[in-house]
Amino acid sequence: MAVKVIGAAFYTSTQRVLAAIYEKGVEYRLEPLDIMGGAHKKPDHLALHPFGQIPVIQDQDLTLFETRAIIRYIAEKHKGQGTPLFGKNLKEKAIVEQWLAVEVEEFNGPISTAIFQLVFGPVSWGIPTDESLVSDALQKLGKVLDAYEKRLSDCKYLAGDFFSLADLAHLPYLHQLINVAKRGEMVKSRKHVYAWWEDISCRPAWKNVLELA
Amino acid sequence: MAVKVIGAAFYTSTQRVLAAIYEKGVEYRLEPLDIMGGAHKKPDHLALHPFGQIPVIQDQDLTLFETRAIIRYIAEKHKGQGTPLFGKNLKEKAIVEQWLAVEVEEFNGPISTAIFQLVFGPVSWGIPTDESLVSDALQKLGKVLDAYEKRLSDCKYLAGDFFSLADLAHLPYLHQLINVAKRGEMVKSRKHVYAWWEDISCRPAWKNVLELA
Repeated sequence: MAVKVIGAAFYTSTQRVLAAIYEKGVEYRLEPLDIMGGAHKKPDHLALHPFGQIPVIQDQDLTLFETRAIIRYIAEKHKGQGTPLFGKNLKEKAIVEQWLAVEVEEFNGPISTAIFQLVFGPVSWGIPTDESLVSDALQKLGKVLDAYEKRLSDCKYLAGDFFSLADLAHLPYLHQLINVAKRGEMVKSRKHVYAWWEDISCRPAWKNVLELA
Repeated sequence: MAVKVIGAAFYTSTQRVLAAIYEKGVEYRLEPLDIMGGAHKKPDHLALHPFGQIPVIQDQDLTLFETRAIIRYIAEKHKGQGTPLFGKNLKEKAIVEQWLAVEVEEFNGPISTAIFQLVFGPVSWGIPTDESLVSDALQKLGKVLDAYEKRLSDCKYLAGDFFSLADLAHLPYLHQLINVAKRGEMVKSRKHVYAWWEDISCRPAWKNVLELA
């Protein structure tokens, strides 16, 4: 039975889940939620997600929210098919988890602030950009990308010489930064980060995700 | 061979790792780092942790940073001993991961801001408390605890009727809030959250951690 993904194909969090689904070759059905109409804050959706966010997945009798829990579940449930997203042993998995933690604790905060100010705020909600917030967020992001530059000079991907969930989790916001907000210089000026981005953004699974948006 | 934990026993992030170690009955050796002297920002430590934080563990040839990656690694490596921290099957593990994601994405931000302002800032670094930041953080935390109250009225622990890594991850900051900052009313006024706190904070593993601090 196909996994139901309740979300919005243009939303970064839904895209992160869809990227994992395509990497794994999992059958799914997208149930679009009218975010612009506030459907995520209505009782029907709040019964599935106490914080009123997207996406939520339903896989038989399991209802699951939180993007990064969903991608772990998909990677683990379907570990025998598609791209191995946790490496091939416990030690590699630990390093994948280390960089997944960096993504959510170091990278996600500044880049989500910048993208809200530069893209989602003004385009989706008519909220003008606060340039001082953008500047502060991009400065913080630059420091994170400096650490990535060092790491990616030692190995091709964040967790080692294999693509993993840690790389995948970065795709949606980097796409917004480079291709929508047109602030790609932060990536292009860092040689190893740029080579990594060029590699991971060319994956067929990610191209499939972008075609839905 | 004992796992080496480079950290500080009075620090919330080190305590989270030690709680997992005690729940699993893993042999370890704590190598205290002189945080007050800035040892975490010196080259020796930055070679282990690119963001200059604690803790870092070394387990044979694996060096691992990021608290929440470390606790997952310990839980998974030692799944055959001590307390099962991921439940007993893939579905339960998915729900544990869901609430671990809530901990880091919803709970950790406001409570760490409040505890820095109320405890670590003034006590450790001589930085005066900014009451407006405290008030804003506690208001946000209250909304998160409201969702926890609803969840914990349905089941005894966050992921279901079993203690897990999701509960464990909350211990260090709730301890600071209730027993150090003396803002326990936020917990005590929510019946199910309070019963949950009373339960998880009485675990022998957590008492062992507090004895080190």
